[in-house]
Amino acid sequence: MASRRISPICLSRCNQTVLRQSTRSRSIFPSPCNNTSRQLSTTSLLREEKANVGKKRDPAPKIVRGQSKLYRDADEAVADIKSGSTILSAGFGLCGTAETIIAAIERRGKESLHSLTAVSNNAGAGGGGGLSPLVMSGQINRLILSFIGTNKTLEKKYLSGEIAIELCPQGTIAERIRAGGAGIPAFFTPTGINTLLQSGDIPVRLGAVDEATGKATILEKGTPRETRIFDGKVYGMERAIKADVAIIRAHKVDEEGNVQFRYTTKAFGQVMGKAAKLTIVEAEQIVPVGEIHPDQVHLPGIYVNRIVPAKAEKVIEIRKLRETAGKEGVEKSSGQLRRERIAKRTAKELKNGYYVNLGVGIPTLAPSFLPADSKVWIQSENGLLGMGAYPTEDEIDADIINAGKETVTIVPGGSTFDSAESFAMIRGGHIDVSVLGALEVSANGDLANFMIPGKVFKGMGGAMDLVGNPDQTKIVVATDHVAKDGSPKIVEMCALPLTGARCVSTIITDLCVFEVDRAKGGLTLTELAEGVEVDEIKKKTGAKFAVSDNIKSME
Amino acid sequence: MASRRISPICLSRCNQTVLRQSTRSRSIFPSPCNNTSRQLSTTSLLREEKANVGKKRDPAPKIVRGQSKLYRDADEAVADIKSGSTILSAGFGLCGTAETIIAAIERRGKESLHSLTAVSNNAGAGGGGGLSPLVMSGQINRLILSFIGTNKTLEKKYLSGEIAIELCPQGTIAERIRAGGAGIPAFFTPTGINTLLQSGDIPVRLGAVDEATGKATILEKGTPRETRIFDGKVYGMERAIKADVAIIRAHKVDEEGNVQFRYTTKAFGQVMGKAAKLTIVEAEQIVPVGEIHPDQVHLPGIYVNRIVPAKAEKVIEIRKLRETAGKEGVEKSSGQLRRERIAKRTAKELKNGYYVNLGVGIPTLAPSFLPADSKVWIQSENGLLGMGAYPTEDEIDADIINAGKETVTIVPGGSTFDSAESFAMIRGGHIDVSVLGALEVSANGDLANFMIPGKVFKGMGGAMDLVGNPDQTKIVVATDHVAKDGSPKIVEMCALPLTGARCVSTIITDLCVFEVDRAKGGLTLTELAEGVEVDEIKKKTGAKFAVSDNIKSME
Repeated sequence: MASRRISPICLSRCNQTVLRQSTRSRSIFPSPCNNTSRQLSTTSLLREEKANVGKKRDPAPKIVRGQSKLYRDADEAVADIKSGSTILSAGFGLCGTAETIIAAIERRGKESLHSLTAVSNNAGAGGGGGLSPLVMSGQINRLILSFIGTNKTLEKKYLSGEIAIELCPQGTIAERIRAGGAGIPAFFTPTGINTLLQSGDIPVRLGAVDEATGKATILEKGTPRETRIFDGKVYGMERAIKADVAIIRAHKVDEEGNVQFRYTTKAFGQVMGKAAKLTIVEAEQIVPVGEIHPDQVHLPGIYVNRIVPAKAEKVIEIRKLRETAGKEGVEKSSGQLRRERIAKRTAKELKNGYYVNLGVGIPTLAPSFLPADSKVWIQSENGLLGMGAYPTEDEIDADIINAGKETVTIVPGGSTFDSAESFAMIRGGHIDVSVLGALEVSANGDLANFMIPGKVFKGMGGAMDLVGNPDQTKIVVATDHVAKDGSPKIVEMCALPLTGARCVSTIITDLCVFEVDRAKGGLTLTELAEGVEVDEIKKKTGAKFAVSDNIKSME
Repeated sequence: MASRRISPICLSRCNQTVLRQSTRSRSIFPSPCNNTSRQLSTTSLLREEKANVGKKRDPAPKIVRGQSKLYRDADEAVADIKSGSTILSAGFGLCGTAETIIAAIERRGKESLHSLTAVSNNAGAGGGGGLSPLVMSGQINRLILSFIGTNKTLEKKYLSGEIAIELCPQGTIAERIRAGGAGIPAFFTPTGINTLLQSGDIPVRLGAVDEATGKATILEKGTPRETRIFDGKVYGMERAIKADVAIIRAHKVDEEGNVQFRYTTKAFGQVMGKAAKLTIVEAEQIVPVGEIHPDQVHLPGIYVNRIVPAKAEKVIEIRKLRETAGKEGVEKSSGQLRRERIAKRTAKELKNGYYVNLGVGIPTLAPSFLPADSKVWIQSENGLLGMGAYPTEDEIDADIINAGKETVTIVPGGSTFDSAESFAMIRGGHIDVSVLGALEVSANGDLANFMIPGKVFKGMGGAMDLVGNPDQTKIVVATDHVAKDGSPKIVEMCALPLTGARCVSTIITDLCVFEVDRAKGGLTLTELAEGVEVDEIKKKTGAKFAVSDNIKSME
């Protein structure tokens, strides 16, 4: 079965030294073990209305209807983009990014085109691609994104205060862009409640290090989210994102701008094309009008202003192939056996016919332990339902990737959709089970798995969205019982910033299974692995727990 | 070129006797010339959170994953729907309605299945079809819809208090349903601000007539919308609609529930399928898994629970054919000539390459006066961009209709989409020009064109949405200068309930053209028809106006 990286999580275990502050890393957070968000009032935090992105000025090139939408090349199409523009840059990882147009923007040079704000799921890989060239060239000085990932240049520029970054969950970015295109100025979402996002404690722009504290000064804080209760549940208000320019790569475009995407290149292309004053599409194929069936247009021509030929080759960010058989003779390590034990038990959570989202690592191993007659549909939050195994060399396709940016396949009956749709599916609770890894998980079901202050600043990707509707989507944590240094991962209260509060229902480790009472708080030990006693669990668990009267063997 | 009826408007002119109350019609409004909404505070009207539709109880049938989604027939698929359910019923007019499933629900009988709340754009035609059978059978006792239209049975049941109706603009219904499916509890929209919708003055359920006043008592008022200002513009907050059951008709469905729609049957099918606990699809074709390309799935299988064969024949509500030539010899009536004069001038508003939405009647005639080399894209708010002429007998297709429910064609380069997308396009200001008819239009650009209290209660359809973003979509009124009884249509202040406030930029009549200063209020006469003097305009206009120094001949 397929596998992918859990998108927004630092998988290296946070050990306790981190909590004492690494001296090598600049501390950027108000406190290393920040849980202040939990004490926030759920009533309005901020009534002041902030202007939309790109609202106060109008640096968008003038659009004149009735002219041909075909441009000779990307240079011609970007020639009148103005400094100070907000640009939506489509693609996920390096899949579906408008590399041809980005290169043309880079060729404009910093003198001619600068002070850009870019909105993108992530900002290219460390080795180039995506928005990397424009970060390197200094043309972008502000980013709204969900994931920094492995882009070291970007991380460095952020830490040195050269660039401002508004981190925003992937589904919230997609929905804010959709709202921008749809004339919706604001909406409410459960994503990010009880996290640093809600409290505005993820700094946007850093200044110099304060010698006294050793911490970076914060030149611009995050925006606290105004909250409101609907039907007994807390939601945060999010504002629409509108932009001057959207840059998109598409598979096929007709001369009037009707667009078709291939597979997971849809991710942000569809939604971004609707939210900018000027949308430029680079097309792998430009076809005559009438060649695309009206029912199969992914982005109608009304949204597309300029079309240029795509010149840049497609890039595969992580070329992952299906393992071939033949490892029978190799003895498994104790780590492997431990992981397999967790995965085997996790498979029991994936019932026949379920629609599931699986984080990278252990959760991803679970499907291989399913009974042969069991069919589980795997959703990948970049916009794919029915994810299959890694491809063979012959099957590999740059346009089919998972949320970990790895090449995958699609099973028969699969479907693709844009990120607004994908996270509508997630946020709306249509996924039956979401299995994630954890840095920490607490006795009341709080989950921390996206950030280690002072050490890891990668972004939350889609993780906050995935745990945003735990009443309808069961959240299962599959994790080693203890960290590499032996410290407990299951704790009374998380010290690390939360991904979500009271969201985890079941914890599966190499030693046991806990059921979590999300309403009242509290753990019950329900299953034990072979040869494991309750006493061992007590020693290795940082939280009190009840023991079920009917404790079972974990298998 | 194509033509269609202006969807939500009573085209018969309101004469002044209406304002004195027709004795034959029951008066249902607080005052016949209700403009109280204009005086409403734009701050919060209602802080109290109301529960979602279908929220407090859980009458949804239990969904078990892993079972076959194929049901023998519609009767089997609806057998466990419970009384008190909220049902989303897809389709627009009689295009794409789930007639097979509706018939099965009717067969359950009122004893077995009753007290249903139905959400649908409209509730079937007067002569049957759509939800009509369930209204007739008394199984539905509450409706959320945008248009009652010609359904006399329904209008009667509403006026007698037998049925409750929440009128809601078409785009707002679509967006509320989308929000329901996407885990968004509430959002803000410009649609309906400064109308009876905002003030809650469209009654939901009526009681007995008060003998003293001759007016119906109001058992349930509308819900006033809480308002809020973003970036200087007023928006109303709308709550999500979630449901127990959605019933949908589709063209092609695979055995795992992946759906494809044909043309304008998408209207509410795509969006409704995502917002119900149980979605039942009747399919014209049931195909093996894998037969639908992943990129061309309109509604992924995750949302579909039960599939039944569609047994009911497709119905064409208004069979409209392209007129053949050969009317040359017939002399035109003065009415025709008047209409053509307005249409000819209206055509000048439709510039080459524009995307436009044209109301029925005079606006629809405009494209026939376009220069031969001018290409205008016509949007039909039921989910079609690139609407063509009426079909010939050979071209007629029950799945391709316009917002007036008439058969039309699609031009090369056209595209189809669901109603949430269609109104995102409209609300988001992507349409260049929207041309509408008017009952009244005021000197500051207020438009009244959807309702005559005490006489016409048809619903607003998409009209409030179409005038909701007048800064980005130019609103042009094309209308006779005076009503049939000679009374002015252009007035100082509208007496009829507004469709939108300060939204009209240009008024084109058979006598002249006015430009409207929407910001400061006030008309300027800029063009005069041949042989018309300013004095005549003064006599026939109910509002003061300035006369341009550079007055032109209207042609």
